[in-house]
Amino acid sequence: MREALSPEVAQAEMEQLRIGTLETPCLIIDAARMDRNIARLRDRLAPMGAPLRPHLKTAKSVEVAMRAMPTPQGPATVSTLKEAEFFAAAGVRDLMYAVGITPCKLAKVIALRQNGVDLSVILDTVEQAEAVALASRTSGEVIPALIEIDCDGHRSGVPPQDIERLLSIGQAITQGGELRGVMTHAGGSYAARGGTALQQAAETERRSVVDAANTLRKADLPCPVVSVGSTPTAHYATDFSGITEVRAGVFVFFDLVMAGIGICEIDDIAMSVLATVIGHQREKGWILIDAGWMAMSQDRGTSKQEMDQGYGLVCDHSGTPFQDLILADANQEHGILKLRPGSTAALPELAIGDRVRILPNHACATGAQHSSYHVVHGKSDIVTDEWVRLSGW
Amino acid sequence: MREALSPEVAQAEMEQLRIGTLETPCLIIDAARMDRNIARLRDRLAPMGAPLRPHLKTAKSVEVAMRAMPTPQGPATVSTLKEAEFFAAAGVRDLMYAVGITPCKLAKVIALRQNGVDLSVILDTVEQAEAVALASRTSGEVIPALIEIDCDGHRSGVPPQDIERLLSIGQAITQGGELRGVMTHAGGSYAARGGTALQQAAETERRSVVDAANTLRKADLPCPVVSVGSTPTAHYATDFSGITEVRAGVFVFFDLVMAGIGICEIDDIAMSVLATVIGHQREKGWILIDAGWMAMSQDRGTSKQEMDQGYGLVCDHSGTPFQDLILADANQEHGILKLRPGSTAALPELAIGDRVRILPNHACATGAQHSSYHVVHGKSDIVTDEWVRLSGW
Repeated sequence: MREALSPEVAQAEMEQLRIGTLETPCLIIDAARMDRNIARLRDRLAPMGAPLRPHLKTAKSVEVAMRAMPTPQGPATVSTLKEAEFFAAAGVRDLMYAVGITPCKLAKVIALRQNGVDLSVILDTVEQAEAVALASRTSGEVIPALIEIDCDGHRSGVPPQDIERLLSIGQAITQGGELRGVMTHAGGSYAARGGTALQQAAETERRSVVDAANTLRKADLPCPVVSVGSTPTAHYATDFSGITEVRAGVFVFFDLVMAGIGICEIDDIAMSVLATVIGHQREKGWILIDAGWMAMSQDRGTSKQEMDQGYGLVCDHSGTPFQDLILADANQEHGILKLRPGSTAALPELAIGDRVRILPNHACATGAQHSSYHVVHGKSDIVTDEWVRLSGW
Repeated sequence: MREALSPEVAQAEMEQLRIGTLETPCLIIDAARMDRNIARLRDRLAPMGAPLRPHLKTAKSVEVAMRAMPTPQGPATVSTLKEAEFFAAAGVRDLMYAVGITPCKLAKVIALRQNGVDLSVILDTVEQAEAVALASRTSGEVIPALIEIDCDGHRSGVPPQDIERLLSIGQAITQGGELRGVMTHAGGSYAARGGTALQQAAETERRSVVDAANTLRKADLPCPVVSVGSTPTAHYATDFSGITEVRAGVFVFFDLVMAGIGICEIDDIAMSVLATVIGHQREKGWILIDAGWMAMSQDRGTSKQEMDQGYGLVCDHSGTPFQDLILADANQEHGILKLRPGSTAALPELAIGDRVRILPNHACATGAQHSSYHVVHGKSDIVTDEWVRLSGW
């Protein structure tokens, strides 16, 4: 039999924050979905012997990081040195800064390393490698660097077949720095559709770094780390031979772009923006809400997909999608809800003051517009926690 | 003759922060351009007898507000109640919250008013008007409300010809609240091109609120305030008859969208994002920088204009544009600089570590990605101030 609640506990339960009493717009995380998403990737990679180094740029939250990382000390990936400092302060000790390093940022890298964080950097030119080696010699702090490989022509990195450039960079790093390995990111996988194309993107990604690692090792250069990563390829790769770690970020929350690629279902998406109805233009079939692009971001990532979700898919306050209702237009603090073009669904009856939740196109971008997460669990309307979110540089 | 500098002052001058020593990416404001932009609109409106109520949602900065407002107490416009609280704390006493009010936000409106801020709200339904009247009666704090008019079918508001709805709302407000007047925003003016179209948009905007005001007054309802506003119409209107105030926001900084409409020149744009070169893909003619969409926002407002500026127009560290160089692609923390399609210009020689400044498509959106402004003056590389920027709700 349950013990009678003390008056204080009963009061606390009564006063518990609920979705209906939050100020809007604000960011909601369904922790039940998030935990399921994290377990799904972990359970997929573990039997394949592919350790996860989650990318913390999506969540930028200590609480989410602690759930996503293999241990409270890491490993993890970051996209800014401010993230590195933030997670270092929370006890994370193994971090990769996965944006090409510039000389002016090396002082901060050295300071973090001297504070006990094994922070590595990435680079793809001899100039950067020489700067890393010089800073290592000058400071006495040996900076580990990975060579970024360009697996799909998407962004930065050395083409894996450019043996001369690879070896020049590798040799330059070792003049004082530590050549830790190679890494790549299959940015092109976001444009792939269907299991076969996604598996091919994953295999191209794997092959590019394994080839580069072999090139370095044949020249007697060290290459202990061979790192790949993107949420689509992490979920579709069938072979991780030669790979020592997998990086992925958006898998913790998922979003409409990932659903459009086919990596998750709509009801896996753990992030939503809570908004309040502020008006109607009934003749036009419009419902106005207090969440515009400031709350959603201007990401229109689904505009190039089969199903264009506007600025987001609209759900009721418990997170169940309305049929065909999207955030079709957005100004700074105004959103306009409309039925999808061609829909035969009825516009839901939403009164001024009613709450809706909008699923985002891109969790990284929408999250960045907010300073905290309000945490709920499944269909419950109780908000159990508020987690701080880092922003800026 | 200039007096000899004391050692302290000489040291301070030497240590002064310069553009070259800022951490990147970060936000730069050229105060000389900003001051010129503010003076330009003020000097235009003053002889036409049109008082300015600047919209502070663009800058979200006390220092910028103090330069843009007619007096340190206001008047001004805000897009969130958090902005209202922020500027109230800085001494502003006359504010309009220009997003349709919901009942759940009225407690905060009342609290601000009880702290001495003349904060008005806007609405376009009888339900909202009844909620304002009820909250006024219950609290004893008479809340002033303006009726939002839909001048161009762009967003929210009552069509000016819907006399029945206008009068119903007006009467509902006066059952306890204060009917302060009518307001509109010519959002459609952003799509206008050329002086004639812009003047027409301004005249349509003016006519809609003047007509609505006449409707209310004929029914013996008060309408002291008749408020219009958008940066394009504020700069192109030739007649403000019947108008009591003009709202505008982006005029303080301007941006590439405004330049594309023809409201300003490129060298009027006072906001830029400072970034560092982090790599090259020389075969493709790409230069990589450490500013992606996180630093620029994902606003692609120029994509529908004659001159598509990508994610921004690239300038050297002093703010002079490179010929045809744009931020063509952006990931979260990576930007790819390319020459505009069809350009015959030479790709500038930029080495790793070099600094560039990117002019934004949309100052409101790019500003929102940063927590402060670094202030420079014209071509000087000295950073004289750092101004805090508000974010969130």
